[in-house]
Amino acid sequence: MSRPVILVTNDDGIISPGIRALVEVMKKFGDVTVVAPDSPQSGMGHAITIHDPLRMQKVDVFGDIPAYQCSGTPVDCVKMAIDKILHRKPDLCVSGINHGSNASINVIYSGTMSAAMEAAIDGIPAIGFSLMDFAFDADFSAAQVYIEKIVANILKSGIPKDSLLNVNFPKLPLDQIKGMKICRQAVAKWEESFDERTDPNGKKYYWLTGHFINNDQGEDTDIWALENGYVSIVPVQFDLTHHHAISYINENWSLHEESLHKQVNIVKD
Amino acid sequence: MSRPVILVTNDDGIISPGIRALVEVMKKFGDVTVVAPDSPQSGMGHAITIHDPLRMQKVDVFGDIPAYQCSGTPVDCVKMAIDKILHRKPDLCVSGINHGSNASINVIYSGTMSAAMEAAIDGIPAIGFSLMDFAFDADFSAAQVYIEKIVANILKSGIPKDSLLNVNFPKLPLDQIKGMKICRQAVAKWEESFDERTDPNGKKYYWLTGHFINNDQGEDTDIWALENGYVSIVPVQFDLTHHHAISYINENWSLHEESLHKQVNIVKD
Repeated sequence: MSRPVILVTNDDGIISPGIRALVEVMKKFGDVTVVAPDSPQSGMGHAITIHDPLRMQKVDVFGDIPAYQCSGTPVDCVKMAIDKILHRKPDLCVSGINHGSNASINVIYSGTMSAAMEAAIDGIPAIGFSLMDFAFDADFSAAQVYIEKIVANILKSGIPKDSLLNVNFPKLPLDQIKGMKICRQAVAKWEESFDERTDPNGKKYYWLTGHFINNDQGEDTDIWALENGYVSIVPVQFDLTHHHAISYINENWSLHEESLHKQVNIVKD
Repeated sequence: MSRPVILVTNDDGIISPGIRALVEVMKKFGDVTVVAPDSPQSGMGHAITIHDPLRMQKVDVFGDIPAYQCSGTPVDCVKMAIDKILHRKPDLCVSGINHGSNASINVIYSGTMSAAMEAAIDGIPAIGFSLMDFAFDADFSAAQVYIEKIVANILKSGIPKDSLLNVNFPKLPLDQIKGMKICRQAVAKWEESFDERTDPNGKKYYWLTGHFINNDQGEDTDIWALENGYVSIVPVQFDLTHHHAISYINENWSLHEESLHKQVNIVKD
């Protein structure tokens, strides 16, 4: 039986310790190829590079594992890997391990998760892994144990084809992690707050900062799981349709032709 | 009664004709402030600027409508507008009119839609508008008529607070548009294809291109509506949880402690 072809990527850049920790685990499961950004791309969301050309360079970073650094975003890396490196869809795409949480609403801003989502849109089983520790020298050893478990499960039992997984690890040693929980995304948000400064030429500039606000008290959320010592696993979808809102709008809005013409006539008077 | 405070943004940049067409309509409804990127930001998805400072400049582009250009992404513009310009949440945020379609899976890549989504995450009613015409001198007049109708509806009847609207207009004159349809996002994707070239120094570089593939035959999708002469309105959500996959994983994966320890032991042997 041939070994699965596994694509590894991330958003912290190809030399980050998090991707090294992920590659170490993944090479037990299949033939790994790494295609990752040549510089940090945190917070890039699902950005793609349209207005600039992309560069790609084979690099020697992981010994005998083929590795390529790309000048684009995490999503660009996945697209480039499929079209120009692997020349096929991989059997699995894993992204991370991110240095920092991608739980709750962070899934929307995360380059790590967007890379995994890009693979999932293409029909590839995909997982994004994140550790709740921003430190460059974070300890990924407990995460590695659970990644092995999760990858074994996805290769054996799969996930629905229109989903991917957002996995977050608490910053805890292995013996203090209580297990894994399949969760929903907590309803939370960032409240923006810009740090205003003045440059040497007297012009203002701003640094984005913010406060994370979680008012979701549910015990079935990823935030609850992480705060209570569990690994959180949220199945994520890329069909963004809000189905309940369809009926709300059909019932409450004036959409039919007659009222439209009336409205348009009012406008033209 | 005080007029609503309306934030207008986009991803094509503050001098694009699409945002001018949108401002013209919106000033009939309330007190408009424009905060938009100082350069094109198409395909930026939900990117935010973490590693660089942001610049903001008041500009005279729309006569007596206050307008600011920002060096960041569309999402940065919304955050900056709330924190540094309006000093409050607007009553409505509209983004566009985008030069080009954001129907179906394009919602994921779109800076236009991500700006509106950022506002919606913050609890603000929000709409992204896009016209299926990439031309700089596209004709926005039919779109303007429907925008007026849609904005009147949202100000009167609202939408569920955890949703926003993705509105796309077919490239048709007003008298050929059949009306509006509330739709779901078509299941479609881009198949990536990079155009490989060689620079004057002999090094390779790549341009992202792709083919849009729609295998969704449903007549309730945005693609169907647009191909059949309707304005498509898709209510969009930012809770990405794939709820059906939660039960699939709980039923099909080995997650309990006993099997975890077994697996971990196998790994360590």
